[in-house]
Amino acid sequence: MSTFETTATIASFGGKLLKLKHRAKTTKCDMNLNLYLPPSATSSSSKDKNVPVLIYLSGLTCTGDNCAEKGFLQRTASKKGVAIVYPDTSPRGLGVKGEDESWDFGTGAGFYVDAVTEGYKEGYNMYSYITDELPKALFGQFEKLDGSRVSITGHSMGGHGALTLFLKNPGKYKSVSAFSPICNPINCPWGQKAFKGYFGDDKQDLWKEHDASELVRKWKGDPLDILIDVGTGDNFYKQKQILPENFVDAAKEAGVGEGVKLRMQPDYDHSYFFISTFGEDHVEHAAKYLLK
Amino acid sequence: MSTFETTATIASFGGKLLKLKHRAKTTKCDMNLNLYLPPSATSSSSKDKNVPVLIYLSGLTCTGDNCAEKGFLQRTASKKGVAIVYPDTSPRGLGVKGEDESWDFGTGAGFYVDAVTEGYKEGYNMYSYITDELPKALFGQFEKLDGSRVSITGHSMGGHGALTLFLKNPGKYKSVSAFSPICNPINCPWGQKAFKGYFGDDKQDLWKEHDASELVRKWKGDPLDILIDVGTGDNFYKQKQILPENFVDAAKEAGVGEGVKLRMQPDYDHSYFFISTFGEDHVEHAAKYLLK
Repeated sequence: MSTFETTATIASFGGKLLKLKHRAKTTKCDMNLNLYLPPSATSSSSKDKNVPVLIYLSGLTCTGDNCAEKGFLQRTASKKGVAIVYPDTSPRGLGVKGEDESWDFGTGAGFYVDAVTEGYKEGYNMYSYITDELPKALFGQFEKLDGSRVSITGHSMGGHGALTLFLKNPGKYKSVSAFSPICNPINCPWGQKAFKGYFGDDKQDLWKEHDASELVRKWKGDPLDILIDVGTGDNFYKQKQILPENFVDAAKEAGVGEGVKLRMQPDYDHSYFFISTFGEDHVEHAAKYLLK
Repeated sequence: MSTFETTATIASFGGKLLKLKHRAKTTKCDMNLNLYLPPSATSSSSKDKNVPVLIYLSGLTCTGDNCAEKGFLQRTASKKGVAIVYPDTSPRGLGVKGEDESWDFGTGAGFYVDAVTEGYKEGYNMYSYITDELPKALFGQFEKLDGSRVSITGHSMGGHGALTLFLKNPGKYKSVSAFSPICNPINCPWGQKAFKGYFGDDKQDLWKEHDASELVRKWKGDPLDILIDVGTGDNFYKQKQILPENFVDAAKEAGVGEGVKLRMQPDYDHSYFFISTFGEDHVEHAAKYLLK
């Protein structure tokens, strides 16, 4: 009674990258994803205990493939003995009116929320998919994975996802980090367009519940240790889509400013060249908490 | 009087990846390539001496972009202080009859030879481009690069290119290595199709002059130290396109078998997942000779 179909198994850095497909109830369609299993999870002779998991949430237009091919996270994950899950960024092929009209809304742009608007509320439920349905299915089938030790990271829209899922679910994830995350979606064009489409103009409470800066401003949980990298050459940063300073300011207002480490990386852009350069740091940041 | 136009400059692993374009005489068209400059070549305050160079030759259908994005050679090149040149795999847009009819001949499939057949002999001169025109232009313009310290590597068709260019030009390259190289093109379908198209059926002398196994059989130069990785899960290996055993046997016949280190990597395929996993070893192999 397997939930996932394994469509390919690819050797990578001593471990295996599995291309998986499963039927998801929350998104009403087949969902593809990649699962990287480090050597400690694939060797039959391995005496290693259960393997902790890092979830990597991708950005606009991406699938789970891009970072698995270009992000270079597997090298460090192999060394540290951490599995990586690379989910897709939205449901696909639902046929909802408007879902394929722009690259920053609908298909490839699920924004890790559960939609409430007509048409979208049936299948655009990436929040429930990532926080609930996907991990339950994965940890049910892949017994080597340790569902009690999970960290989260992501890029751009996926950085927004990582920060908000972490902040909305204290204790669920051992750590969080992000590459050029959308830090304050209610105040940037990408976020405003998406939240209008998934929540509607009038649901300002829902907008705020999925805004990392609003969430960190109210943080009452354990001390934070959030690693964020942003490139100074990132055009989306220059266009004020990322707004990391707003997140830092909100954390300071909440008295938890010391728990946010924002590194502005000179000249780096928004691409996978940026992610691959600093990927090692982010996997090590997660491993510090997953392995302690 | 700049030869190259820099169309993009991308921060990567502390150095810069330059997207370059120049007009090439040997190939009768504009050629694109990528040049990775490690920090020692880009820092204005750097007191480093000239920077050695590793040429990476790509495989069928690829451009200079694929490995720059997915090969992860830049990480080790940055650490070692080695520049990497990623050239294109053929002329583009010449309009030669038949050049776009198949993926393994013509466009994207120059095979690193100088063609002699009608139509192809004018521009399909990747041998002269890689061994002569491109390095002269690069070392003329980028003064930090050390044209006297150059190594070569490559993948598949590019592995064939690396092995043959090294063996045909003793002393020109400090070292050579290859990822799943086409080792005996005169005896595999890819090579036979290409050599027939670029040399003609009757030019068996030219065929042999560009066959790595034939060349190593006649090797009279310095002791060899050739690193070759091939995945046992590589479908092209299974289809006998790679034939690394023929290269090893030919080296043994020539009494230089000890200079060929063939590593059969369990389960790895022909993809960039394979290259990225072992890229560190190949850059270190080159650095051992470039930096001594």
